[in-house]
Amino acid sequence: MDLPVTTTVDLSAVRYDSATGLVPVVVQDVDTGHVLTLAYANREALKRTLATGESWFFSRSRQEYWHKGATSGHTQAVVDVRVDCDGDAVLYLVRPNGPACHTGENTCFFRTVTHVETSIVRDATAAAPASDALVSS
Amino acid sequence: MDLPVTTTVDLSAVRYDSATGLVPVVVQDVDTGHVLTLAYANREALKRTLATGESWFFSRSRQEYWHKGATSGHTQAVVDVRVDCDGDAVLYLVRPNGPACHTGENTCFFRTVTHVETSIVRDATAAAPASDALVSS
Repeated sequence: MDLPVTTTVDLSAVRYDSATGLVPVVVQDVDTGHVLTLAYANREALKRTLATGESWFFSRSRQEYWHKGATSGHTQAVVDVRVDCDGDAVLYLVRPNGPACHTGENTCFFRTVTHVETSIVRDATAAAPASDALVSS
Repeated sequence: MDLPVTTTVDLSAVRYDSATGLVPVVVQDVDTGHVLTLAYANREALKRTLATGESWFFSRSRQEYWHKGATSGHTQAVVDVRVDCDGDAVLYLVRPNGPACHTGENTCFFRTVTHVETSIVRDATAAAPASDALVSS
């Protein structure tokens, strides 16, 4: 997969959320094109990614730096780091060394949403006989 | 591009940010594999996307619903809506009817980040003669 690039910038192009200091990072497999994960990084995590060529994030739940694969071995070699037009989203193009998801799936996006919630409206059910009567009359 | 899917869920699988009521949405071109945009949606925007088969978001800056392409004509036909393993990120797989980015680029991620900021440290420059003297002594 070949994503067009027109401009080269440095890390000052990235805008972090004013409350959290974080920016969302889309992680994509550069070979298959699969979107693997959405995670978050702060400036230091992005610096470590650029310096090491492997995916670094900042874990919102654990409030600590997260070197992807440090425990599992499923590191991600970062081929390219992109920033979007207004600077508030980042994209890592990676070659993963194993599944991206903690469930063991290759991608975290393995669930498809097919419809809005199935709601059981009890009042409507209770009124059904009267409606049926109207329809059949 | 073919993203594996293993589970079918309904919209109740999506978890919204407790402060904003929003969830980040990665938008990807299902044919080229290009990641186009990162935007945000609330529950109503996701419902409209599922109901109409076109990309709907909620604009954080304008604080209003955003039907992609309503003004520009660059709508996005949504082929699939995915939710990630822990429910706090969504992926739209789309067929775009024109460029995704307001700049006219096909993707918002047209800028590559090659290095950390180039910093000019004026204090260090000012101290240079003394340092030079030390080094050369």
